[in-house]
Amino acid sequence: MRASVMTGVRQVEVQERPVPAVADDEVLVRVGSVGVCGSDVHYYTDGRIGDMVVTGPLVLGHEVGGTVVAVGRDVPEERLGQRVAVEPQRPCRRCRQCHAGRMNLCPNMVFYATPPVDGAFCEYVTAPADFAHPVPDSLSDAAAGLLEPLSVGIWAAHKAQVGVGDRVLVAGAGPIGAMVAQAARARGATEVVVTDLVESRRERILQFGATRALDPREAAAELADLEADAFVDCTGATPAVQSGIRSVRGGGAVVLVGLGAEEIELPVQLIATREITLTGTFRYVDTWPRAIELARTGAVDLDAMVTARYDLDSVGEALEADSDPMSMKAVVDVAGGPR
Amino acid sequence: MRASVMTGVRQVEVQERPVPAVADDEVLVRVGSVGVCGSDVHYYTDGRIGDMVVTGPLVLGHEVGGTVVAVGRDVPEERLGQRVAVEPQRPCRRCRQCHAGRMNLCPNMVFYATPPVDGAFCEYVTAPADFAHPVPDSLSDAAAGLLEPLSVGIWAAHKAQVGVGDRVLVAGAGPIGAMVAQAARARGATEVVVTDLVESRRERILQFGATRALDPREAAAELADLEADAFVDCTGATPAVQSGIRSVRGGGAVVLVGLGAEEIELPVQLIATREITLTGTFRYVDTWPRAIELARTGAVDLDAMVTARYDLDSVGEALEADSDPMSMKAVVDVAGGPR
Amino acid sequence: MRASVMTGVRQVEVQERPVPAVADDEVLVRVGSVGVCGSDVHYYTDGRIGDMVVTGPLVLGHEVGGTVVAVGRDVPEERLGQRVAVEPQRPCRRCRQCHAGRMNLCPNMVFYATPPVDGAFCEYVTAPADFAHPVPDSLSDAAAGLLEPLSVGIWAAHKAQVGVGDRVLVAGAGPIGAMVAQAARARGATEVVVTDLVESRRERILQFGATRALDPREAAAELADLEADAFVDCTGATPAVQSGIRSVRGGGAVVLVGLGAEEIELPVQLIATREITLTGTFRYVDTWPRAIELARTGAVDLDAMVTARYDLDSVGEALEADSDPMSMKAVVDVAGGPR
Amino acid sequence: MRASVMTGVRQVEVQERPVPAVADDEVLVRVGSVGVCGSDVHYYTDGRIGDMVVTGPLVLGHEVGGTVVAVGRDVPEERLGQRVAVEPQRPCRRCRQCHAGRMNLCPNMVFYATPPVDGAFCEYVTAPADFAHPVPDSLSDAAAGLLEPLSVGIWAAHKAQVGVGDRVLVAGAGPIGAMVAQAARARGATEVVVTDLVESRRERILQFGATRALDPREAAAELADLEADAFVDCTGATPAVQSGIRSVRGGGAVVLVGLGAEEIELPVQLIATREITLTGTFRYVDTWPRAIELARTGAVDLDAMVTARYDLDSVGEALEADSDPMSMKAVVDVAGGPR
Repeated sequence: MRASVMTGVRQVEVQERPVPAVADDEVLVRVGSVGVCGSDVHYYTDGRIGDMVVTGPLVLGHEVGGTVVAVGRDVPEERLGQRVAVEPQRPCRRCRQCHAGRMNLCPNMVFYATPPVDGAFCEYVTAPADFAHPVPDSLSDAAAGLLEPLSVGIWAAHKAQVGVGDRVLVAGAGPIGAMVAQAARARGATEVVVTDLVESRRERILQFGATRALDPREAAAELADLEADAFVDCTGATPAVQSGIRSVRGGGAVVLVGLGAEEIELPVQLIATREITLTGTFRYVDTWPRAIELARTGAVDLDAMVTARYDLDSVGEALEADSDPMSMKAVVDVAGGPR
Repeated sequence: MRASVMTGVRQVEVQERPVPAVADDEVLVRVGSVGVCGSDVHYYTDGRIGDMVVTGPLVLGHEVGGTVVAVGRDVPEERLGQRVAVEPQRPCRRCRQCHAGRMNLCPNMVFYATPPVDGAFCEYVTAPADFAHPVPDSLSDAAAGLLEPLSVGIWAAHKAQVGVGDRVLVAGAGPIGAMVAQAARARGATEVVVTDLVESRRERILQFGATRALDPREAAAELADLEADAFVDCTGATPAVQSGIRSVRGGGAVVLVGLGAEEIELPVQLIATREITLTGTFRYVDTWPRAIELARTGAVDLDAMVTARYDLDSVGEALEADSDPMSMKAVVDVAGGPR
Repeated sequence: MRASVMTGVRQVEVQERPVPAVADDEVLVRVGSVGVCGSDVHYYTDGRIGDMVVTGPLVLGHEVGGTVVAVGRDVPEERLGQRVAVEPQRPCRRCRQCHAGRMNLCPNMVFYATPPVDGAFCEYVTAPADFAHPVPDSLSDAAAGLLEPLSVGIWAAHKAQVGVGDRVLVAGAGPIGAMVAQAARARGATEVVVTDLVESRRERILQFGATRALDPREAAAELADLEADAFVDCTGATPAVQSGIRSVRGGGAVVLVGLGAEEIELPVQLIATREITLTGTFRYVDTWPRAIELARTGAVDLDAMVTARYDLDSVGEALEADSDPMSMKAVVDVAGGPR
Repeated sequence: MRASVMTGVRQVEVQERPVPAVADDEVLVRVGSVGVCGSDVHYYTDGRIGDMVVTGPLVLGHEVGGTVVAVGRDVPEERLGQRVAVEPQRPCRRCRQCHAGRMNLCPNMVFYATPPVDGAFCEYVTAPADFAHPVPDSLSDAAAGLLEPLSVGIWAAHKAQVGVGDRVLVAGAGPIGAMVAQAARARGATEVVVTDLVESRRERILQFGATRALDPREAAAELADLEADAFVDCTGATPAVQSGIRSVRGGGAVVLVGLGAEEIELPVQLIATREITLTGTFRYVDTWPRAIELARTGAVDLDAMVTARYDLDSVGEALEADSDPMSMKAVVDVAGGPR
């Protein structure tokens, strides 16, 4: 099969690779479309994310929609031909975190496109049968792939415990901010204030869940008085995190989704005296069925978030272009054009 | 002032009453509109609801929208002229239930239109200032009143822990069923199946949150296989409760909102082996701010639920007409016609 | 190996059976001691529990302590010789219930000593390596086996959300009542009232977590005024369930652990107007590590609960004797006497 | 009455003050004993805690046990003579935080011994009747006063969601650390590791809930591998907070109780990738009934924590002596000697 392989910093090339073997409990998925994620771009441009370092050839990409073309011995044949969205995690299912319902924190996790595990910018991938979620035909392959970032948004809104009538502050009007904003709306938030430094992104986010979009440099006072029920950071930017916390009402929640500095100076006395709960998200648990429902019912329009399309021969171009602030979501159509 | 007083079973008459005195922490509200609730009808037709018996003249009505026309000594004068929705409960704020955040279960509760406490089918009522919630001008007085049944729906959906992408079964396509269905949708439910015996009600409920409406007599098999995340009963009918429980997946929730028989034979082994959580709702906690937001943003259109309007002289007519299955919501416009 | 096989109602006999083969992810456990559970007795005396019918030869027993004597290919050799407690469930780990952290509700569950799956009254059993929990040497094999009913108690106290300073009502002073009482105490309950019809059992339960033991026939008034934070039924007896619910304060919990009638007439209006949460327990999730800690630290003395000991040749005797109300816990020592 | 008044930094003097008037919903309490809290010492030595500045004469002390000697108009006369513990907060009961069950976060809070509100180092104080909690006669006045810091511990253990069999790390072996450790044990924690720099404090804390006490300078490696379910900081010391977070397992909790620096550099990526929940505590909600139960049953021995006793004339001495690291808890016996 053809695979777009990262061979060095800012270097990808298409190589021939064997089609992966299917284990007993797996399916083989013919990749239709793969979304380009910020983490792919990080590996591509920096060769690492924190402790995770690219030390050999690596296939990036982990937002996958495609079609089941082979099944392992323990998987029913009915699944052949099924269109699926791949949940790119493989927890061990056996450790205490898995037992306790926190498989996303499994210390034995194998995760797509995280060195040295290959991802999905290629023609075929395998996945455990239960992590290849059937999608309705109304969802395109690209939309199926974007269920992954939507899952990030759903998980963040869950961690933020967003409720009906809540006011939510989201920092960052990029794709993750948009997913969080839309997930917050789906949970009943009636005010979703999104901050971003770029005006055009602020304008655009009003189509993707935001009820108000503010420039944090100009709206400092308004933000300080926001009394938000929850604040979700999707930037990783230290000033965004620091000021966002101050916008949260007593008893509210702060959720860190964007990753930036290892350490940030945080207002711990304010956190304590307001009993703010600060946490972050790492992958997700049981979100695909929910994400599929939001996409199926049109509550979230994933295709509308696609701003650029590439093919397997132009993955490098896709990764380079992603730093454009106006790129909401690029997808790589592997199986010959949009479906 | 003029008040419509229940003087016996199926008897109401307009009487002159003194305008109530305003305590230090209260506001006096000029009543604009009052919704007619099933409990009003119960008192009117039966003279009682369970242990609560009408033993003397009683003013019914507890779904109130109006305008602040006087304030107690401890209430800021700015509140004069404010349009408000009245939360009809007066918990003691001092018992352990109140301390623990369960003021709805306060054993010292004083509640509008619950014998011997008068309600709101009259020109003026008092309320603690904090239970007279300011509403935006975009809400009519009728809509302000209907924030009360919407609160019932929000509280039921909260108790049912409805989540994004959930499938919810609601029994009963009347006003409470409609409120629950819409509240469930607001929390992200993507399938809301409502059952009702009356075809025209099934048709109508599709405008008010239901994604599917079924005749429980015809759809028994479909309902048995529903695997609903939650079931909310808004009928109080024994068969509806009994069969609804069987539609719930393992780990799901059952919430009893409708009141019918004192006791019902329930499938306790099924509840245990599926670890279903069964509970009920009694009033509400901290729902008005959320209800106001849903109405303000149009997530719930309360005016559209009004199917009949009366004035203070025709309260009896309103109470009689409410048993019409096609009556979604009747309101009594007290202050001279709809606002 | 030798196995005590149920060959008919009230019939068991020791047969030779092959030692079970160890799958890749399993361990082979030399059985040390097996507790006798009420469910074993039910199958033995009635040939069924509800829908689960014994249709062929069946090995009973699912409360197992023993020693790892062989490991599957994927299991580290270090586990050889390890003393373990077996968690007798084998969820599929792949369905949505498993994904969502509710493996106990897995529809594909395979469970020891549940027809047609054999249990542990025999010399060797297999278990997935992660469900064979290492125990400290301070725990006897019998105590290791009794971590299973302790897990039932921990899970019930968890479902009841027992808190510090709580008053808990437990119906039934048998082994499960004792486990629930002790688990409730471990969570900080300061009053644990246990009801039982038998005086000697009431006396004995004061050694096992109860702070007060009452005859429900004589203490009806006291129980009605109990205002318990939680009620856990361990009898399955209809009157116990019905009256216990009335002992619970507004906002409290009812947990059904004992199984009796399929259906029970329940006071649904009281449940609703008090917003009582009623649920039940089915198996457990992530309880062994907690149970081991309670046993290790002496918070619960499992050996003290053993009232009779048998060997593999006298399993029938053990099952017959269990109906003696003063039998707290019988164990079958398989590997030659108590360890 | 006689009151010990702080008249400047490190200055207190006994003055004559009028006995406070009792409002309708209040009781007048003859003060028996008052615990000395770190916050009293802070005001005394620094004249401020953060934004809260002592600008005039101030009576310190807020851990009060005493006897009801007068009641307001709305309070039953039966309360006269009742021995009580005073919960030193007066929330407004009317704001949204109060409505939502978070009265501890009430922005209109009036709190004892917080400038400019006087506290309890004096002969008489008033309290809302519902915040003067009756205590059993087995509790001394000093113990009744120490229900306040015990409440801090209970609230912290609640925020940390300590569960049965949990491993909890507590930084700081002073009185608050001891309360947290004992509250954690009461909730079922079986390992409570307490760190402190002072050896004698480490030794002593083993009597007050700790199962292990470590010098954080020597046990760094052991602490880094702790995989604690929860970490509660009771020091406010930046290094303690920073290193404690790294001891927490994925999905665990961090609770900040001690107040130190306004801001601390925190490992946000670790918090996010482990989905650790970090929060703090501010006062408490519904803890006195629980604290009374723990003291009544001997689960926590409050008298044993008293290491020094003073009278109203020696409050300055008490405040000066509190900085002695071996002072666990000093109390001021106001009503003439220990009771």
